[in-house]
Amino acid sequence: MLVLMEEIKTKFLSKINSPADLKKLSKEELSQVCSDLRDFIIDAVSNNPGHFGASLGVVELTVALHYVYNTPYDQIVWDVGHQAYAHKILTGRRDVFHLNRKYKGISGFPKRAESEYDAFGVGHSSTSISAALGMAVAARLKNEPDRKIVAVIGDGAMTGGMAFEALNNAGFLKSDILVILNDNNMAIDPNVGGFSQYLLNISKSPTYNRLKDEVWDGLGKLNGFGPLARRAVQKTEGALKNLLLNQSNLFEAFDFRYFGPVDGHDVVYLTKVLNDLKEIKGPKLLHVLTKKGKGFPYAELDQTRYHAPGKFDKNTGLIYRCDCDVEKAPKFQNVFGETIIELAEMNDKIVAITPAMPSGCSLNAMMEKMPDRAFDVGIAEQHAVTFSAGLATQGMIPFCNIYSTFMQRAYDQVIHDVALQNLHVVFCLDRGGLVGEDGATHHGVFDLAYMRSVPNMVVAAPMDELELRNLMYTAQLEKMGPIAIRYPRGCGVNPSWRMPFCKIEIGRGRLLTEGEEVAILTVGKPGIFAQRALKKLAREGISAAHYDLRFVKPLDEELLHSVFRKFSRIVTVEDGTVKGGFGSAVVEFMAENDYSARLKILGIPDRFIEQGTQDQLYRECGIDTEGIHKAVLKLTDR
Amino acid sequence: MLVLMEEIKTKFLSKINSPADLKKLSKEELSQVCSDLRDFIIDAVSNNPGHFGASLGVVELTVALHYVYNTPYDQIVWDVGHQAYAHKILTGRRDVFHLNRKYKGISGFPKRAESEYDAFGVGHSSTSISAALGMAVAARLKNEPDRKIVAVIGDGAMTGGMAFEALNNAGFLKSDILVILNDNNMAIDPNVGGFSQYLLNISKSPTYNRLKDEVWDGLGKLNGFGPLARRAVQKTEGALKNLLLNQSNLFEAFDFRYFGPVDGHDVVYLTKVLNDLKEIKGPKLLHVLTKKGKGFPYAELDQTRYHAPGKFDKNTGLIYRCDCDVEKAPKFQNVFGETIIELAEMNDKIVAITPAMPSGCSLNAMMEKMPDRAFDVGIAEQHAVTFSAGLATQGMIPFCNIYSTFMQRAYDQVIHDVALQNLHVVFCLDRGGLVGEDGATHHGVFDLAYMRSVPNMVVAAPMDELELRNLMYTAQLEKMGPIAIRYPRGCGVNPSWRMPFCKIEIGRGRLLTEGEEVAILTVGKPGIFAQRALKKLAREGISAAHYDLRFVKPLDEELLHSVFRKFSRIVTVEDGTVKGGFGSAVVEFMAENDYSARLKILGIPDRFIEQGTQDQLYRECGIDTEGIHKAVLKLTDR
Repeated sequence: MLVLMEEIKTKFLSKINSPADLKKLSKEELSQVCSDLRDFIIDAVSNNPGHFGASLGVVELTVALHYVYNTPYDQIVWDVGHQAYAHKILTGRRDVFHLNRKYKGISGFPKRAESEYDAFGVGHSSTSISAALGMAVAARLKNEPDRKIVAVIGDGAMTGGMAFEALNNAGFLKSDILVILNDNNMAIDPNVGGFSQYLLNISKSPTYNRLKDEVWDGLGKLNGFGPLARRAVQKTEGALKNLLLNQSNLFEAFDFRYFGPVDGHDVVYLTKVLNDLKEIKGPKLLHVLTKKGKGFPYAELDQTRYHAPGKFDKNTGLIYRCDCDVEKAPKFQNVFGETIIELAEMNDKIVAITPAMPSGCSLNAMMEKMPDRAFDVGIAEQHAVTFSAGLATQGMIPFCNIYSTFMQRAYDQVIHDVALQNLHVVFCLDRGGLVGEDGATHHGVFDLAYMRSVPNMVVAAPMDELELRNLMYTAQLEKMGPIAIRYPRGCGVNPSWRMPFCKIEIGRGRLLTEGEEVAILTVGKPGIFAQRALKKLAREGISAAHYDLRFVKPLDEELLHSVFRKFSRIVTVEDGTVKGGFGSAVVEFMAENDYSARLKILGIPDRFIEQGTQDQLYRECGIDTEGIHKAVLKLTDR
Repeated sequence: MLVLMEEIKTKFLSKINSPADLKKLSKEELSQVCSDLRDFIIDAVSNNPGHFGASLGVVELTVALHYVYNTPYDQIVWDVGHQAYAHKILTGRRDVFHLNRKYKGISGFPKRAESEYDAFGVGHSSTSISAALGMAVAARLKNEPDRKIVAVIGDGAMTGGMAFEALNNAGFLKSDILVILNDNNMAIDPNVGGFSQYLLNISKSPTYNRLKDEVWDGLGKLNGFGPLARRAVQKTEGALKNLLLNQSNLFEAFDFRYFGPVDGHDVVYLTKVLNDLKEIKGPKLLHVLTKKGKGFPYAELDQTRYHAPGKFDKNTGLIYRCDCDVEKAPKFQNVFGETIIELAEMNDKIVAITPAMPSGCSLNAMMEKMPDRAFDVGIAEQHAVTFSAGLATQGMIPFCNIYSTFMQRAYDQVIHDVALQNLHVVFCLDRGGLVGEDGATHHGVFDLAYMRSVPNMVVAAPMDELELRNLMYTAQLEKMGPIAIRYPRGCGVNPSWRMPFCKIEIGRGRLLTEGEEVAILTVGKPGIFAQRALKKLAREGISAAHYDLRFVKPLDEELLHSVFRKFSRIVTVEDGTVKGGFGSAVVEFMAENDYSARLKILGIPDRFIEQGTQDQLYRECGIDTEGIHKAVLKLTDR
């Protein structure tokens, strides 16, 4: 009976296996498709966690785009891509959507290998206009004037610098692209910056809102009647818009033609607007106002929590908190979030910076408690790092918290602005290693390699919460150069991590377990797996020693000398790339000091790792307890 | 007699040993200081090559800034910094300026370790607003409301995304910073993009130009009379400006107050304007119009050539071309520039992209010949890479040419947009290795390390011009994933490089010289040095083999197996970092395959290398002929 009701409820959606099916519907039926889609997404994501609010916000826009455009010949590039669930569901993936973000399932982001409708793989922010421009230029070179290219980008993603680089270039190249600015005034947390306020100002203009329908009506009437009519349209529209806004527009400074703002939840109106815009040449920007979480009242009210809420009750909105047992062990991010406040209370030089991840990295508590000393700088990793460098020149101690995967975007600033000047900036790289369900775009597996080749940089990876806490403490204790403290997503293992602070000597590892036959060298979280593997090995009569090196750079050479003198069989384990990472540093040491040993490097193999639970992925990479156990057995010829 | 005339000519400048001396002069004497500075710079740079046009363009601005502001307490951040010669000369470095860019001399860029007047080290573009904002926030936290912070940024640098990230954040934080937009409508090559056109439009507004003096006069009269007067000033100024421009301004969209444009070559007027702006709180932008090369007519006429002209005759403007003997061997960049045209003529899928370096990387010839297929996208490395990715999705083969050091800025785009999607983008990394006089900010020494940890990426480094040409040919021959071809600054060794194209098998190295005692493995240009070292060693009776691996990734494992089977003494040589680079890859191979050998890794040591000639720096790093020779001797216990 319930099943039947669901079927009736989603009767339109169940018939749509591709955009071709959508196009068979009348405009009037589109609202029902939107309603079906919303029900489907709420049902799916409440059971199988994923991104939520963003997709609900663009249901109408997604339906309108696939209704109007000839996808996949026409190309839609979704910026970031966590808002693309409706797009996935409409483009043949409805029946596998329960496998969203699951191991061997489908990706939580658009992905070229998954569907021809996914024009460009995404995950990180602000790439869509660049990619779309490349496609548009290619279409021109290939003489495909009928091929339309659309980039859909949020107001948060628009603050990322490369979006502006792309706007600047697109205006210059005069290519036929449509940029849809999906303005919900939110990133994951509320969007910040002068630009955000600017969008709000133009959206609230009463003159504009009163008259915009008339403009569009004018456009509609003239549409589709050949070049002469189009020129007339363009003239009319330009004059009217100037009259309405009575101001030059930011986007027009980049030679984009600006249209909007329009209501992003009126699907019929959106189809009309998009149809009109198809006829207009050159770079265009359509400003669409949407509400994140639209149609699920709890999500509309608390947009940050419902960005990616985990499992929840779709009737009551209750979010089940089950991913960490707080009694047992905290999330690493919360250890950061609590510790930074404690340290900042003791040391008034400390400031903290996050590029648009206050809740993700748990800096929000400090931002509330010490608003003058904790900064959300927007989706702007490059700026975050050099802003930190500027602070450091004046004797402040910035803790710059950036997800490992996003730090890739500020690599030059780390080298050129921080390390070269040997400035005391503390980089806290959250989500280091395999992040799980977010998959290939989000794993933070390159950091150990790309950080350790930078002179002056200290690179540390705590094995557990207490180590993270003490590394943070150490990093602000006295004047030093740059240090990167890299820690994983998710929970640790240590319920009693709130211990008195304890200094860790920079570059000093530790022997955790004595052993005779083989030495296991770890950095970071895999040390936990090594501990477990040791126990298993001991039961099997194999005596393995375990060293937690703590620092990938500087390496504890004294400790390593003692290891290489004693052991001829060595395993290194890290949750970073085997190419160029910690193990690589150890073999460099071995070569430099003319040691020889049978040495096995365990880590992330030289390919991109897809989504799954963290445990599934650790296993796949052979760096979990079993993988370490197996490697030791092999090395000891068992 | 001539010396005497020079002294008379620069009589004002010769008395200025610090900005304090400058401040003793009357406003009327400042023009003479500017004239002196110009003579000094022309004299110095015509003899000792360096950046030229940019510094000439900001002589008046520099004098005005140090006259008005209380440096070094007030902080001036020069974006890029190649325009900071006048700043260096005025701040105590006049008498060492003949050592500009020389080994053990002074840096060609502002550098914190060199002078307290150099508030922030620069070299790469678009960092100044971020750094200045950090300084301004620190000043607020340290309760130093009298400390002024100024960022001077060119219109080219403003197109770099991080400048916009910083504008967005500064407007939000409402910090007291002054951004001076030094608008000469040029990067090294003419500036491109919608933004550039926008600046031109507002600069040319006749309404504005007619009335701007009146505004500033109004401001001047009211200035310095306490808060009430200031409020009046602000009101007046705002109203007038709106009246004049009759449009909202791009910068005001970011909550900056916009002033200008003003004549950047009227030093007295500039001091007046800067004095006025000191009293105005919050984020401000002053738009200054300057001419690159101002005061040296040849440079004004050919701004690109005189950006960094090398030695020239200061009387005739004749540029001495002596850095390469074209008869003997070409510059690597010209091999790229010629070859890309040849290839593009054969393969219509090929397009080429440069972020603002058409003349630097020699893409300008193709841009002229095939304007539809060669793109200068502005100072925008991130966009350049993802734009290339977009092109590649449509079957085009983009050759994306980015200086190695600037590619650091697009690392995330390389990983996330290109490699993860396994797109066929050919990265041509010019200026790989030690670049010489540009120094620490510009050496391209991290690339081998940061590229080889990226899955799907092929990393090649040609030893000479012919290899570069054939690698470029190979890279477009059939469908493949991403490939990075990394080659050095300056000249090669091969006069007869224009040979018929020849395919190089991906991942295939070559044995260049047979030998018995020791194997030398090289990638890239150091192979030339190895060849020379071999001859010296042979004369001394030492038989060394030389393998040019060509590819850092994939390594030629077959070749390496044969090397490790035969040799127990091995030297690797690269002009990249020893940490994580080519040598590191070889020791990883050694460990993985249970080989043991005495192995010495030669490369760039784990510290930042300063400026000098390339040969001086190769020597310092021990990777020149002598360094290789010495390493082999040591390894063979001679």
